[in-house]
Amino acid sequence: MAELLKGALVAEALAERCAAEVEACKAKGVLPTLAILRVGERDDDLSYERGATKRCEAVGVAVKNVVLPATVDQATMLATIEDLNKDAGVHGILMFRPLPEQLDEAACCEALAPTKDVDAATTASLAHVFAGKGAGYAPCTAQACMEILNHYGINPAGKRAAVIGRSLVIGKPVSMMLMAANATVTTCHTKTVDMPSVTREADIVVVAAGKMETIGTEFFKAGQVVIDVGIGWNEEKGKLCGDVCFEEVEPIVEAITPVPGGVGSVTTAVLVSHVVEAAQQVAGI
Amino acid sequence: MAELLKGALVAEALAERCAAEVEACKAKGVLPTLAILRVGERDDDLSYERGATKRCEAVGVAVKNVVLPATVDQATMLATIEDLNKDAGVHGILMFRPLPEQLDEAACCEALAPTKDVDAATTASLAHVFAGKGAGYAPCTAQACMEILNHYGINPAGKRAAVIGRSLVIGKPVSMMLMAANATVTTCHTKTVDMPSVTREADIVVVAAGKMETIGTEFFKAGQVVIDVGIGWNEEKGKLCGDVCFEEVEPIVEAITPVPGGVGSVTTAVLVSHVVEAAQQVAGI
Repeated sequence: MAELLKGALVAEALAERCAAEVEACKAKGVLPTLAILRVGERDDDLSYERGATKRCEAVGVAVKNVVLPATVDQATMLATIEDLNKDAGVHGILMFRPLPEQLDEAACCEALAPTKDVDAATTASLAHVFAGKGAGYAPCTAQACMEILNHYGINPAGKRAAVIGRSLVIGKPVSMMLMAANATVTTCHTKTVDMPSVTREADIVVVAAGKMETIGTEFFKAGQVVIDVGIGWNEEKGKLCGDVCFEEVEPIVEAITPVPGGVGSVTTAVLVSHVVEAAQQVAGI
Repeated sequence: MAELLKGALVAEALAERCAAEVEACKAKGVLPTLAILRVGERDDDLSYERGATKRCEAVGVAVKNVVLPATVDQATMLATIEDLNKDAGVHGILMFRPLPEQLDEAACCEALAPTKDVDAATTASLAHVFAGKGAGYAPCTAQACMEILNHYGINPAGKRAAVIGRSLVIGKPVSMMLMAANATVTTCHTKTVDMPSVTREADIVVVAAGKMETIGTEFFKAGQVVIDVGIGWNEEKGKLCGDVCFEEVEPIVEAITPVPGGVGSVTTAVLVSHVVEAAQQVAGI
């Protein structure tokens, strides 16, 4: 039986720390505030908005909702972003994507002030993760993986890590963050030959394959820590599943994140922590 | 006996391609031009300037020399950069670093227009390498490694690559570029445990350890391709040496870059190719 690396405990610990930091900000006259910029009424966005709002409220972070019609034009969108950039009462901006087709999404992302870019939409945030310096924030899901390792006392330093996936949202940034934590990281992807032989060498395996229940026992060995970033609805089983074949892999490895209840449940807590961090900068803490 | 991956042939091939591209730019009324911005008279800078100027002249790229006194202040420096950014006759800017202490080097780097940043000084260029999109150019030395592999018909796709070093100038960017070429990359660094066991797994090993003749036979096995980025003066031997113990390692591996005459001799050719690429953008080619 592997240790289950449940996300809820990690999120709770993060929230506790954030709540204390929010109090410190308030004492300096700064109320940490997240602006949620939503275009239209997509179900996914509304669902994430509810989750993020709940997390914010729980730690005392204020939420400012900005909603534009699905038909909004580029100039209005950019003007709205600029207003939020300039608004001294807003510390972080969460802009839901994908944006409707009439908008230039890349231009909208770049328009965000890096110092308020709590969800890593800007080039500056990518460079921040790559270079370990400059303004910006890591993608929340990538950082959620690191928070889980940290919470459960798994120090990547000197360990070998394998990451399955090289996307800009998770694979590449989590590779960089593991390297910054002094792991020796191998990033696998669709062109990797004999991927199981690579992942079996690792002490820590982060799985962001983007394909449900495709990473089976052949990828793992005893003693490994497995972080499963995947999440999708399994019609046949009638439940949410990760990229790892959990039932088969769990008995083999040392520790594994469940799906649901693993990485996904830490993501919004990380988002909130970024807002608080941005507010601390403003408060001079 | 390993195949010697000599840089001169790579640089020649690059120059030939560039010369043809310069002609195409000229036919569109655009003369590819590199501005070399030098502060003071450091020997290193003067030496690199001579090399780069020679390379530029050989392919028909014009050089505009801008020299400021070693005592220049920040405002003058930034105004000079801004003039070069705005100058439609300048396509690439090479700003020598380190800058004198009175200058804010990070601010000077960021002041460069990413579209003219042919030596990867800006955050945008770093993000360009990390994300594989957006304006900017890869660090010349990192790209020189890739040009050597390409020239000698060594396709990284599906291969395992190990990179020794995680600097922003070479280790991290070359890791990203190898990954973009579909290699499965492991980046090693000072905190890597049993590094030889990691590098021996690889088909391609890029060495940027930053310590002369420290990477011996235990790091290698038969069949490997070795790219040695290191260069330093060996007092005892009275000659330039790389990070790899060349005499011992060369008989073991399949192919290796010599030092001198390897990576270093390709770097300025890459710089020139960046200037030509920038000019092509302007010429709409």
